[in-house]
Amino acid sequence: MTTVFIRGLGLIGSSLARIIKLGHPKTTIVASDTNQAALQYACQHNIIDEAVPNLQGASEADFIILATPVSQIVNDLHRLATLPLKSNVVVTDTGSTKQTIMKAAQELFTKSVDFIGGHPMAGSHLTGVQAGRADLFHNADYFLIPTNKTNGKQRLEELLKSAGVHWVTITAETHDRLVAQISHLPHIIAYSLVNQSAAALTDQHPGLDAAAGGFKSTTRIAKADPEMWTAIMKNNQAAISHQLDEYINELEAVKQAIDQGKQQQLKAYFTKAQRVRQQLD
Amino acid sequence: MTTVFIRGLGLIGSSLARIIKLGHPKTTIVASDTNQAALQYACQHNIIDEAVPNLQGASEADFIILATPVSQIVNDLHRLATLPLKSNVVVTDTGSTKQTIMKAAQELFTKSVDFIGGHPMAGSHLTGVQAGRADLFHNADYFLIPTNKTNGKQRLEELLKSAGVHWVTITAETHDRLVAQISHLPHIIAYSLVNQSAAALTDQHPGLDAAAGGFKSTTRIAKADPEMWTAIMKNNQAAISHQLDEYINELEAVKQAIDQGKQQQLKAYFTKAQRVRQQLD
Repeated sequence: MTTVFIRGLGLIGSSLARIIKLGHPKTTIVASDTNQAALQYACQHNIIDEAVPNLQGASEADFIILATPVSQIVNDLHRLATLPLKSNVVVTDTGSTKQTIMKAAQELFTKSVDFIGGHPMAGSHLTGVQAGRADLFHNADYFLIPTNKTNGKQRLEELLKSAGVHWVTITAETHDRLVAQISHLPHIIAYSLVNQSAAALTDQHPGLDAAAGGFKSTTRIAKADPEMWTAIMKNNQAAISHQLDEYINELEAVKQAIDQGKQQQLKAYFTKAQRVRQQLD
Repeated sequence: MTTVFIRGLGLIGSSLARIIKLGHPKTTIVASDTNQAALQYACQHNIIDEAVPNLQGASEADFIILATPVSQIVNDLHRLATLPLKSNVVVTDTGSTKQTIMKAAQELFTKSVDFIGGHPMAGSHLTGVQAGRADLFHNADYFLIPTNKTNGKQRLEELLKSAGVHWVTITAETHDRLVAQISHLPHIIAYSLVNQSAAALTDQHPGLDAAAGGFKSTTRIAKADPEMWTAIMKNNQAAISHQLDEYINELEAVKQAIDQGKQQQLKAYFTKAQRVRQQLD
């Protein structure tokens, strides 16, 4: 009988619980969360089998999944290193930054633990256990940073087989640069556009209320959880800062073309972006 | 019998034709477009009654609606000033920038023409006559810049009553500042994020293919028509350049907070944006 311990039953953790139950109905899922209502909801809806406090239950688990904000994952990795754990237990996480986490996991490597950094590339501006879905990651990339200790990577992929993801093995460095660009930077752009627009349009009627679908779509992810995103800024600071600099340089170049009335150059630039973006659909 | 002449049967022009037919089935709609297939489609689907070349048909119209890209609207306004027009004809446009257009319309004021600048605040990354819909502007703001000549504003609102819009009277200057912020700037942000991301991730697997919903939503409007948006950059240059400067300053401030690890400040900043953005839904 396989036992899985999940720390954090928000959108991601509860989606993984649903995925595991779908593919392996007989697996026992034990979970903890600081939100008691989330645990209660998950028990009542058979998303998990048992609710426990803190890391209780981790010692008996065959799989440990840490699905909290990055700063909490780092704390829990340090605490797991002090606990007795099952031999050959597979430990993974779902955090958006990987270098800090791989470093924090090194203490675990002295034990017979197979740690595999993980990051499913999907999410939602929705949060919480009720928003979780077994198909949340369907067709998305799921990054894995294996430490090549045992066959933990194969076992983890088998456990989550119902997720329907594309498994992508990657280094922590490459991962952090990639997500800084395609996930972290867009969040900064959205948060900043909302705040700068609100400031620019203060006392101006109709102001932001006139915003149409374009503005709303561009800023949709500004609805994301501020606590989670503050932790990400801290834990991927170097890569984010570098990509943000490059983006600011890009905007400066576009501004220059606008100011100098370079119509042909602007049209070619917009056309290139349009083509690249259309290919993502 | 009322006759309406529409120049440009793309998304906006063909949506207005549908709106007029819905509210005033007996109105005759005459239209021209450089795209013959668009005219043919519109005739076949009874969206318009007659297709004509260029501005032919404008002289007999009670309403003239210019729904092409801004640069073409300016050209057509100059040409309309040289044509015989009906007494008390109402001329309007749908362009995204208003100061250039109001200036180009001044030659018309020597005639007994009531010009009203117009701009419906909705659109789509979809384009063309087939994408038009009678409910495209439903519940959106529709800006009008009247010149207070006759009762043209009331007549125009009556003609388009089925649109279900909120009519907002505004000055050309205020309009251009407002849309620079909530429409033009977001388009620059989206086009630039796509191009800078593609450049940053060249030769990196999986690169942009790993982009999840957040990136796609933030860059959705990068699929918009490059020609139309190049014209907008030219025609609202001053306001766009100013707001783009402010946005770059905002990003610089956020970058500084990230680099200096100001967690509390970032969390408060993200929380403020989250609250403002949630109110837009």
